Amino acid sequence: MGPRKAGGGRADERAEREVDLSAVRDLRKLQAVRQRSALSSVAQLVSFQHVVKEVQEMGATGVMQGVLSLCAHATDSIMKGEGFSLLVPSRSASNQMYIAELDRIVLKDKATARNFASQATVRKAAITVRILQLVHELCKKGIHVTKRDLFYTDVKLFKSQTESDDVLNDIACMVGCTRTSLSVVASEKGIVIGRVQFREAGDEIDCTRMGVGGKAIPPFTDKITEIRSDAEFILLVEKDAAFMRLAEDRFYNRCPCIIITAKGQPDVATRLFLKRLKNTLNIPILGLVDSDPYGLKILSVYMSGSKNMSYDSANLTTPDIKWLGVRPSDLDRYNIPEQCRLPMSEHDIRTGKEMLQEEFISSNEAWARELEMMVKRKEKAEIQALSNFGFQFLTQEFLPRKIAAGDWI
Amino acid sequence: MGPRKAGGGRADERAEREVDLSAVRDLRKLQAVRQRSALSSVAQLVSFQHVVKEVQEMGATGVMQGVLSLCAHATDSIMKGEGFSLLVPSRSASNQMYIAELDRIVLKDKATARNFASQATVRKAAITVRILQLVHELCKKGIHVTKRDLFYTDVKLFKSQTESDDVLNDIACMVGCTRTSLSVVASEKGIVIGRVQFREAGDEIDCTRMGVGGKAIPPFTDKITEIRSDAEFILLVEKDAAFMRLAEDRFYNRCPCIIITAKGQPDVATRLFLKRLKNTLNIPILGLVDSDPYGLKILSVYMSGSKNMSYDSANLTTPDIKWLGVRPSDLDRYNIPEQCRLPMSEHDIRTGKEMLQEEFISSNEAWARELEMMVKRKEKAEIQALSNFGFQFLTQEFLPRKIAAGDWI
Repeated sequence: MGPRKAGGGRADERAEREVDLSAVRDLRKLQAVRQRSALSSVAQLVSFQHVVKEVQEMGATGVMQGVLSLCAHATDSIMKGEGFSLLVPSRSASNQMYIAELDRIVLKDKATARNFASQATVRKAAITVRILQLVHELCKKGIHVTKRDLFYTDVKLFKSQTESDDVLNDIACMVGCTRTSLSVVASEKGIVIGRVQFREAGDEIDCTRMGVGGKAIPPFTDKITEIRSDAEFILLVEKDAAFMRLAEDRFYNRCPCIIITAKGQPDVATRLFLKRLKNTLNIPILGLVDSDPYGLKILSVYMSGSKNMSYDSANLTTPDIKWLGVRPSDLDRYNIPEQCRLPMSEHDIRTGKEMLQEEFISSNEAWARELEMMVKRKEKAEIQALSNFGFQFLTQEFLPRKIAAGDWI
Repeated sequence: MGPRKAGGGRADERAEREVDLSAVRDLRKLQAVRQRSALSSVAQLVSFQHVVKEVQEMGATGVMQGVLSLCAHATDSIMKGEGFSLLVPSRSASNQMYIAELDRIVLKDKATARNFASQATVRKAAITVRILQLVHELCKKGIHVTKRDLFYTDVKLFKSQTESDDVLNDIACMVGCTRTSLSVVASEKGIVIGRVQFREAGDEIDCTRMGVGGKAIPPFTDKITEIRSDAEFILLVEKDAAFMRLAEDRFYNRCPCIIITAKGQPDVATRLFLKRLKNTLNIPILGLVDSDPYGLKILSVYMSGSKNMSYDSANLTTPDIKWLGVRPSDLDRYNIPEQCRLPMSEHDIRTGKEMLQEEFISSNEAWARELEMMVKRKEKAEIQALSNFGFQFLTQEFLPRKIAAGDWI
């Protein structure tokens, strides 16, 4: 009862052959050159700084100083006889701006006063002070909590979680740090496996020795230190089923890489972790997603962020991810049978057409061509459609061939 | 800016005190005695065996033998001139039965013939043979796939995933093994941290050295071997936010335990893992869930399984989980303020009332009393409501007090 399909048969023969990594290495060199030229455009960044508001990762001491200086500002205002007041950067859509040179959405410089002696802002002002106090407490204790925990510390004042969440974002902008730096984190969802070692809260973690289940990515990356790796690239996987296949086959042994998945829509913790890896290791990132508009959308969230976290965009985004597959053009090239392709719904097609207008697609000709092909043919396919050629076709044939050929865009 | 609430203050003083474990140890002894008497009721189990169908965990060799013996049965039928036929146990509701002595839902002994020479069953028969072949291939190669992968291997024949999933359950009953034994697994969702060590696919895993993120529970437990632990109990947590608090505070250092969460509704992998731990270590399991009907429902899924996997119930269920908290009576006992309690919706109340009729509640007087109180007061609360007394109230006060007092039901 061997594999019935030709694909499966060929895959078996190739199982032990080494994967040709020269294309990945070329990409790495190219990206290094580009990064050097990007560094020279820091001058550009500086010229924007008087109009844009961006935040940065900050340690507990920095955040505590930030909180204290906001308090000092308010005290000054009171002493001058102007009453309690804080200046809060506006996060409204009209204060947002896409900067092509940075390839990010950022905040412009509009800010409004939040006074205690005003009926319109007194509640917000009180909430702001309470959350400043709580953040200071968290930083002092060196612990992390979720937004939900924060809400429950003073339900009477906050009334709904939307209010405490909202003010938390304000405070990140006021202090000039990321929300994670405030010690308020989202829950974890991502997992990692492969050629990377690091320390997490002091524990030595070796992701090549994480069995088949992998290591849960922690909700905060500030406890991760001493990242080391001999990987040639990071493989970013949309779905956990594909992750499972790669983990069980220990793909990272054949092909030195780090494998990450957020199990669908990327969460903040996974995005932060990816960014940390990229900044430290400076290796290419290859994306393996479904051939549908949502697969592309997932890559875009990793690359350029989402609108409601625009102030935090620099810290969450990892530009220059390569789209490895499954691409619309792969369907014919790999002879994916008709019955493994799925018809796109009206909604899929509309989403695809809308995405064609978006900056991150229109600025990348190769991506636009693929998406146009998808919308025109009205068909999509999941990564798992490759199982049609044998369960291990993905790890033994598809990925090695793509990586050796440098077949990404 | 110290903690404002009295609870938080007390918590700080207690931070380093050791937790009194005598109540947990007593529970462990009690459960060991009960287990011995349960073993004597194996005689009972045997008396049921002629009417009930249950499956068991089975190695790859056993499954392959099972598949081959089914093929032999079909061959016999053909040789006798009766045509290709397989006998398939019925999984319909009318063939299901709750057995109080076993505290599980099981299948009765009804079975139907699946003939190739019948228009009504020819398609199902063809699908069954194809999946038998695929399962044999998986066992031979020693790899695991998801139900979705299985579907994609022959979309033309299966047409929809419901059909291949359905036949897969049939095959588990026919072979007499669990679905996981067939090498077809669900994706992983759970995480574990704390006082347990094991080998996973040969890698040594030490869950006391998993940083703050923990170890992802693998989608299949057959690769887990050599489980070792000095834990006194397993703490089963509903939500990942509470898990995060426990992990960051390294609660397992103060109080030797293993901490597990499935992040909401328990998945098959987490249930299997819990069962493995319980069978190997034989220590009590304490449940920490929200004080609402869904928290109880989650405990019930771990304990007695869900109807659509009834044939697999013995392998997925872990009876005798203690309800540690948050219980409706805790709300007053711990002075949870009014504003941290949430009103139950009509739907919540209806669900609660329905659950009062269910066997797993009505057979446990203490549980029924708590649920009655919840439904009567029409108020619920999340685990995170405890943050009202300070972010670390859960780990420094609530759990140590409960565990020392043996305050579970």
